[in-house]
Amino acid sequence: MIKDDFELLTDTPFLALDLEVMERNLRTMAALAKQAGVKLRPHTKTHKSPYIARKQLEYGASGITVAKLGEAEVMADHGIDDILIAFPLVGRNKLKRFDALLDRARLTVGLDDIAVARGINEVGEARKQRIPVYADVDTGLHRMGRDPLASVQSILDIAKLPYLEIRGLMSHTGHAYARPTEEEIRAVAIEDAELMNETRLQLDRLGLHVPEISVGASATARFIGEIPHATEMRPGMYAFNDRFVMAAGGAEERDCAVTVYATVVARPTPERIIIDAGSKTFAADAFKHGGHGHVIGHPNLTLKALSEEHGTIEVAGSSDLQIGDVLRIIPNHICPAINLADELYGFRNGELETIVPVLGRGKNR
Amino acid sequence: MIKDDFELLTDTPFLALDLEVMERNLRTMAALAKQAGVKLRPHTKTHKSPYIARKQLEYGASGITVAKLGEAEVMADHGIDDILIAFPLVGRNKLKRFDALLDRARLTVGLDDIAVARGINEVGEARKQRIPVYADVDTGLHRMGRDPLASVQSILDIAKLPYLEIRGLMSHTGHAYARPTEEEIRAVAIEDAELMNETRLQLDRLGLHVPEISVGASATARFIGEIPHATEMRPGMYAFNDRFVMAAGGAEERDCAVTVYATVVARPTPERIIIDAGSKTFAADAFKHGGHGHVIGHPNLTLKALSEEHGTIEVAGSSDLQIGDVLRIIPNHICPAINLADELYGFRNGELETIVPVLGRGKNR
Repeated sequence: MIKDDFELLTDTPFLALDLEVMERNLRTMAALAKQAGVKLRPHTKTHKSPYIARKQLEYGASGITVAKLGEAEVMADHGIDDILIAFPLVGRNKLKRFDALLDRARLTVGLDDIAVARGINEVGEARKQRIPVYADVDTGLHRMGRDPLASVQSILDIAKLPYLEIRGLMSHTGHAYARPTEEEIRAVAIEDAELMNETRLQLDRLGLHVPEISVGASATARFIGEIPHATEMRPGMYAFNDRFVMAAGGAEERDCAVTVYATVVARPTPERIIIDAGSKTFAADAFKHGGHGHVIGHPNLTLKALSEEHGTIEVAGSSDLQIGDVLRIIPNHICPAINLADELYGFRNGELETIVPVLGRGKNR
Repeated sequence: MIKDDFELLTDTPFLALDLEVMERNLRTMAALAKQAGVKLRPHTKTHKSPYIARKQLEYGASGITVAKLGEAEVMADHGIDDILIAFPLVGRNKLKRFDALLDRARLTVGLDDIAVARGINEVGEARKQRIPVYADVDTGLHRMGRDPLASVQSILDIAKLPYLEIRGLMSHTGHAYARPTEEEIRAVAIEDAELMNETRLQLDRLGLHVPEISVGASATARFIGEIPHATEMRPGMYAFNDRFVMAAGGAEERDCAVTVYATVVARPTPERIIIDAGSKTFAADAFKHGGHGHVIGHPNLTLKALSEEHGTIEVAGSSDLQIGDVLRIIPNHICPAINLADELYGFRNGELETIVPVLGRGKNR
């Protein structure tokens, strides 16, 4: 499975990236967006890698999304120019860094409050430059943003700030992952865009035209052709996929581009296998159906528990796996697993082609 | 709370280390071990920092424990010499690295299987050097090791390998964290050592003398004076403590040395506060009583949910917290939170004294 020379080069656990699967995922989503007539602005928090962001742009993305200012700095360092920072920038030091970054990239910022908007407006005023803003609208996730009705007044207030430009409305359909059926996930996707459009129509009536409706989540991305009003989509996980996306019907095992390679290091009982990858490799994100990963090729194995460095696999029936055997496992949630890795080993046709550094790892500021 | 100059130096989220609290924790545990007449070999996976490991040695630790070979390499790079690698080393590359590390540090390795032992024995044979080994015994955690009786034959087999020396028996009482009362946690601690001693007595009768009984976990560490047979203890979290250790009665809020500083970035509704720290800062380890952290000074706030970059706080009653306010939060589990950080900001008397790099971060191989 792993070539001999590669085994000498490194050892487990590590994250292997199947470049062909990833490129297929990127192309498929780009085609889907094109067909639906919406812009694709992938969320790069999944991979945190300028190398992959550039591929996304090359395949047709109109720009990228990042989770934090620190990720934007890394992407700008590598020549990526059109960046949505989908997080409110608060604090003097953040605004100072934002100001510096505006010298070298086109930035849009997400926010949901006049208190945050005032800081951004001050940066714009000092630069004599209008800063494009996406306003968060809460369409059901109950994280950022007010409900679609309450958002109207809040956005009108923000729009009065002279150095801001309300470029779009933005939501995230993360709540779709909890829905049990394809029909319900589709319904979340459509409701999300309908709700944002109601906000937009009201704003329009009150004299504020907002050009973009930007929708998120890989779980709902496949329905983009049926989603009304959306002008842009921001899926992230689709680049790699994972157990969450699989459970939401957005991918199959063959679409998962990143797998954890882990070695069996103990077999204390016939029912128990211990591997050398735990929550420091997979991250500890809980899965609604239980377990911590999908063990490829071994339907009778469940990755039952994670310590930091140990994974405990439960064997149903029997298994002849021995100490030294290597397993490939799809994580529950690929984004935090990537954030734990310094690099991804990029394979093509089973040969190591490139090592992709996760340059945005840990940039939580 | 944070000094003005410090605010310019950095921004949230970050991990603040109260050096006085940490030093008190280190001294208290060293005194406890001394009083009980056992060696202290702290598990450094909690802090992953040679700076702190050196302090532990300075205050009386006899050596250190690490979780992975990569952590041992980092510690040896910084002059630390007596290291227990509490993880089975499997694979050619691991053994090659282990061999290289033996040139510059005294190493002991943990394992529970003859298949792993054979690899270590080969390294010893090539070096003409006996390698000290701790054998894992399963005293209730059901992770590494066989049960105390089955361990006897397994350890006898391993002991036949000529270049190994069975130096000790080792367990981890991580299962104590799930016990609801102090009495039950004490009972776990005592049963653990009794079980290992049974294994030792049987081995003794069969002609194999094993000098060390090494017990683990900060949850049970405070009972060391009452734990029979133990010759060594390997607590880790006691250096910093966290919500897990607090819930197990092993620490109070004032004993928690590391807190996450996070900023309020959105207040979408009166009941909801969004902070700029999520699972990329706290890690996603679930807590038996729910929630993701203890918000210091705000008993009516619950850190209810984590996305990667957002923390969602639920307000009971009302809160006048505003965007820009900074909160201090104790994570559920400090070890994986440290593993997400590149550095800790070390304060003394509220002044930034030093930045402690987390040099062992991400060393999962």
